[in-house]
Amino acid sequence: MPNLSKPPVTVLGLGAMGSALVEALLVAGYPTTVWNRTPDRAKPLVTKGAVHATNVSEAVAASRLVIVCLLDYKSVTDVLDTAGDALAGRVLVNLTNGTPAQARQVADRYDVDYLDGGIMAVPPMIGGPGAFLFYSGSRSAFDTNRPVLDVFGESQYVGTDSGLAALHDIGLLSGMYGMFVGVLHAFAFVGTEGVPATTFAPLLKRYIGGMLGFVDGAAEQIDKDDYTINVVSNIAMQSAGYVNLTQSTHDQGISPELLAPLGPLMARRVADGHGHEDLAGVIELLKKGKK
Amino acid sequence: MPNLSKPPVTVLGLGAMGSALVEALLVAGYPTTVWNRTPDRAKPLVTKGAVHATNVSEAVAASRLVIVCLLDYKSVTDVLDTAGDALAGRVLVNLTNGTPAQARQVADRYDVDYLDGGIMAVPPMIGGPGAFLFYSGSRSAFDTNRPVLDVFGESQYVGTDSGLAALHDIGLLSGMYGMFVGVLHAFAFVGTEGVPATTFAPLLKRYIGGMLGFVDGAAEQIDKDDYTINVVSNIAMQSAGYVNLTQSTHDQGISPELLAPLGPLMARRVADGHGHEDLAGVIELLKKGKK
Ligand SMILES: NC(=O)c1ccc[n+]([C@@H]2O[C@H](COP(=O)([O-])OP(=O)(O)OC[C@H]3O[C@@H](n4cnc5c(N)ncnc54)[C@H](OP(=O)(O)O)[C@@H]3O)[C@@H](O)[C@H]2O)c1
Ligand SMILES: NC(=O)c1ccc[n+]([C@@H]2O[C@H](COP(=O)([O-])OP(=O)(O)OC[C@H]3O[C@@H](n4cnc5c(N)ncnc54)[C@H](OP(=O)(O)O)[C@@H]3O)[C@@H](O)[C@H]2O)c1
Repeated sequence: MPNLSKPPVTVLGLGAMGSALVEALLVAGYPTTVWNRTPDRAKPLVTKGAVHATNVSEAVAASRLVIVCLLDYKSVTDVLDTAGDALAGRVLVNLTNGTPAQARQVADRYDVDYLDGGIMAVPPMIGGPGAFLFYSGSRSAFDTNRPVLDVFGESQYVGTDSGLAALHDIGLLSGMYGMFVGVLHAFAFVGTEGVPATTFAPLLKRYIGGMLGFVDGAAEQIDKDDYTINVVSNIAMQSAGYVNLTQSTHDQGISPELLAPLGPLMARRVADGHGHEDLAGVIELLKKGKK
Repeated sequence: MPNLSKPPVTVLGLGAMGSALVEALLVAGYPTTVWNRTPDRAKPLVTKGAVHATNVSEAVAASRLVIVCLLDYKSVTDVLDTAGDALAGRVLVNLTNGTPAQARQVADRYDVDYLDGGIMAVPPMIGGPGAFLFYSGSRSAFDTNRPVLDVFGESQYVGTDSGLAALHDIGLLSGMYGMFVGVLHAFAFVGTEGVPATTFAPLLKRYIGGMLGFVDGAAEQIDKDDYTINVVSNIAMQSAGYVNLTQSTHDQGISPELLAPLGPLMARRVADGHGHEDLAGVIELLKKGKK
């Protein structure tokens, strides 16, 4: 039941994420207008109370607050370029995954009050306690629309530069994908001797969770640019062990390609005289100017 | 104070880890004999009650239970080959990091009751609640010496094949190093816009910790060989986002090499018609026979 005391919201894009955003808005009582390239995806949301606009201009005209959540930035400009004058003066909240540079370009492209966002959750988490979202760009757009944004999850504003939400988003995704890469490598590796992934899963979760303390230790070393602080495992020892990891992966008939790149970086740090220091020093080799 | 009711233990190798093992044994009251290539490293342990043997044979002769914790398997054979007949009939517990194949080779090389081990802890954790160790090989060596082994951490026996402890060890290290790789990439990336690593660290820990649920979902899909079960984020969408991740890393002046290999694997799964499935399906591309 839309609550007429709440401002209307338009959502463009009804993929897995866009649909989850709309459901959360409807549950919170916001009158919600939706549009999607493939119109059929609007049906389940209309059943729940959304209004289905037949084109982008009509959708955009329905609300001062327009949220866009599409596959990528190409789809964002494909869609918004068809809105014509309807966009002028709107608050545009773009929750599509992109790069900092792409966010800045879209902010400049349209005559809108622009807020960029990064969703740090999967669709089933939207509206629940675990979800949080980064926002950057127009501070007034953030403050004014805060009650709507808070419907999706915890809202964190990270700066007036539109690119900063994407920077934080990609930073966290990098950490997550690294973990995923390690987990997939691990399952492939132990699977070669018949250890079921579901048997190994609790051990992996416990061990990775226990090793998250690395994050704080590395952060201190990186900010102080000193990789000799609190070294618990020197990189020379770790580098020797890493050769075993990649070699035995290969021996077991599995491609070590996902984890392979760390090996040569560790070896270079050791060769450069940093063998007694900590692993985090490899970050210096990622900074191109420093090569 | 050595407790004469406890059996004597010998430890070969007094690096960061060997020294931590000896300290835990001394605290638990085991009469402990130590040896290290560089003899000076025995001094702090002798102060705490260890007996310093001047050569490997003498060290090995002092106890029925001999624990070896050296840099790698080359150092293990370098050292044990000098023990001569003293090793015959001993229980040898090898806690040096190596591959399954190396563990099997050492088990065959010496006339000992062989137990291989993998230490899932850093030195400061030894003897504390968070440490655990995998063991494989001689079941009777494990059962008989269980009280000593439990001094180091929780002991988990994974099978009579000597290679299985190393398999489990490397499996968990793979998960851990993946996480490390993601964290280092993340810090390098956000650092380009001046976000201090210590500011980003709490966000990273929270997000990676929250995403550990991936481990169980992926495990189920892998064991059932079905990547369409409970898909929350399809790989086509993730692959599009991953291009942003690597491209923007490059744009920010950071080498994306640590996380780069996942991109082409995702793209191949999408090209092969698995775009609606889950990320975990990339594991199929790591199995060489399946290419
Ligand atoms: N799902 C997640 O776990 C998750 C988490 C965080 C962030 N995100 C981000 O949220 C955004 C949406 O993800 P999703 O999971 O909803 O993806 P999805 O389920 O694959 O949906 C993609 C959406 O984009 C639309 N689209 C694609 N190309 C288009 C084009 N050229 N013109 C118009 N519309 C186009 C699709 O329309 P059709 O229906 O017509 O194909 C659909 O609405 C992405 O940027 C993603 O990175 C997703
Ligand atoms: N530290 C950790 O976080 C950790 C965690 C789990 C497992 N491990 C494993 O534990 C083992 C030892 O690690 P660590 O941290 O103690 O390493 P470390 O501090 O670098 O010590 C290396 C040890 O190996 C000895 N060594 C190296 N080459 C030798 C050779 N050719 N002959 C004789 N001795 C040799 C060194 O003797 P010198 O003193 O004479 O150089 C020293 O005792 C490694 O296999 C490692 O993978 C370590």
